[in-house]
Amino acid sequence: MKIAKVEFQGTARWAAITDAGAIDLTPLLEAPEGAHPLLSEAGVQRANNYVAGCSPDSALEDFSFEPFLPAPEKIICVGVNYANRNEEYRDGSNLPKFPSLFMRAPTSFTAHDRPLVRPRESEQLDYEGEIAIVIGRGGRRIAREQATAHIAGLTLMNEGTIRDWVRHAKFNVTQGKNFDFSGSIGPWMVTADEFDGFDSLALQTRVNGELRQDDSTANLIFSFADLIAYISTFTTLKTGDIISTGTPPGAGARFDPPVYLKPGDVVEVSAPGIGMLRNGVTDG
Amino acid sequence: MKIAKVEFQGTARWAAITDAGAIDLTPLLEAPEGAHPLLSEAGVQRANNYVAGCSPDSALEDFSFEPFLPAPEKIICVGVNYANRNEEYRDGSNLPKFPSLFMRAPTSFTAHDRPLVRPRESEQLDYEGEIAIVIGRGGRRIAREQATAHIAGLTLMNEGTIRDWVRHAKFNVTQGKNFDFSGSIGPWMVTADEFDGFDSLALQTRVNGELRQDDSTANLIFSFADLIAYISTFTTLKTGDIISTGTPPGAGARFDPPVYLKPGDVVEVSAPGIGMLRNGVTDG
Repeated sequence: MKIAKVEFQGTARWAAITDAGAIDLTPLLEAPEGAHPLLSEAGVQRANNYVAGCSPDSALEDFSFEPFLPAPEKIICVGVNYANRNEEYRDGSNLPKFPSLFMRAPTSFTAHDRPLVRPRESEQLDYEGEIAIVIGRGGRRIAREQATAHIAGLTLMNEGTIRDWVRHAKFNVTQGKNFDFSGSIGPWMVTADEFDGFDSLALQTRVNGELRQDDSTANLIFSFADLIAYISTFTTLKTGDIISTGTPPGAGARFDPPVYLKPGDVVEVSAPGIGMLRNGVTDG
Repeated sequence: MKIAKVEFQGTARWAAITDAGAIDLTPLLEAPEGAHPLLSEAGVQRANNYVAGCSPDSALEDFSFEPFLPAPEKIICVGVNYANRNEEYRDGSNLPKFPSLFMRAPTSFTAHDRPLVRPRESEQLDYEGEIAIVIGRGGRRIAREQATAHIAGLTLMNEGTIRDWVRHAKFNVTQGKNFDFSGSIGPWMVTADEFDGFDSLALQTRVNGELRQDDSTANLIFSFADLIAYISTFTTLKTGDIISTGTPPGAGARFDPPVYLKPGDVVEVSAPGIGMLRNGVTDG
């Protein structure tokens, strides 16, 4: 099942997405803005029962997507995590023992089919296609062996980055990862029951149709289970928290000379079994 | 005026704190959980009018504080920001051009008078006393000259840190700054109208009564106005966002040998004109 936040008739609402359109799931929620009841196995079951035989409340062409952000509290991103990307750094270092982590604020994301914003402060807007985990059942110190049972579903992220601002400070990448609308998330979450494991998911990024990133989660240094176990060692994961799992080699900064995004470009992040997240680029 | 989130009679609520107790401000709020209407000049004026002549709804000994977190979306912390602290790093570097920034999640904070938690994963829980800005009026690309007008008030933070986890990864300090209840924030916000500027506020941290940090915002590399202007260059600041402004020299990690917190210790972060944030330490 695909769950998304969409807008039609002037109202944002959580909906199930089918080939024909969007089915409003608000009747299943206590508060219209809260997707949490949809992020459990039981919730998905209820939603499946509810939508069976429903016709769409809005046809595909009549609604727009909102960023897939069911909870604003924690959006944790993983740095270098595809094994072959570590080589891009060419610093002779061995594989890291622990993942590099940083956070993004909700304000840094736009939605599917809305433009990424290249800010006036920089010409170095870059893409990073990623698969993002949506946490279902929360927890602390989750055992690696039980970790994937805490996944509500997967969505896609363009973990868009302002490269020169990533290195503004002596430590930490916060500012280069948090320009308003420099990234995107969505279009929807595909619920966990639709995946046979998470260890061989393909992931591709295209710019204006040209393949730039092409990899598989088989090459992750830290698997989805590793990440959930490690991150929950220090912080209580909650329903709706997002963990974005890292980007493959091939971001624009790694070209020689670097190739950054410019207005008019179209970036597509896609993973079979999840979908495709598409964004244009605009100045702002 | 002092505004805090407190709990009494089993309910968390926003309140004005006086010498005699807490005056429930819920009647001024559309939603009891939302402090936003209190974080504007007009809101403070309304609250002042409301509490005039009120007697407390709860006496001082009858309520407990919640962490001062009016919005969960953005808690931005500043790394090395007191000029004399840069020298602690002894790496011969010049003063930084831009501040180092990282984010903490709400889960990383406990409240005034509740214990900081030293996790079983580390013996290196350390204190960092800080003054934190609470954003009133939001904005993007706020001019330095107008920046302090966006301050709703000030609160105190113990930006507690698990030192060995700060350097787990090659980049970024996220994990060492986000252990559950490793830091604290509160007890209240003192509204901006009570300050004659922000450039000479004293700040002290004591452990078991012993003075460990003692400095003034006069020594900040990046002033409150600098920080608001710089951070809002990349992200839209919203009402209730928190910017913690950095810690003076004297954290436990800087002693030789380092002196970390242990169960039974009591840490007090204080600033005249704001108040005192006190926490014990427990294992967890």
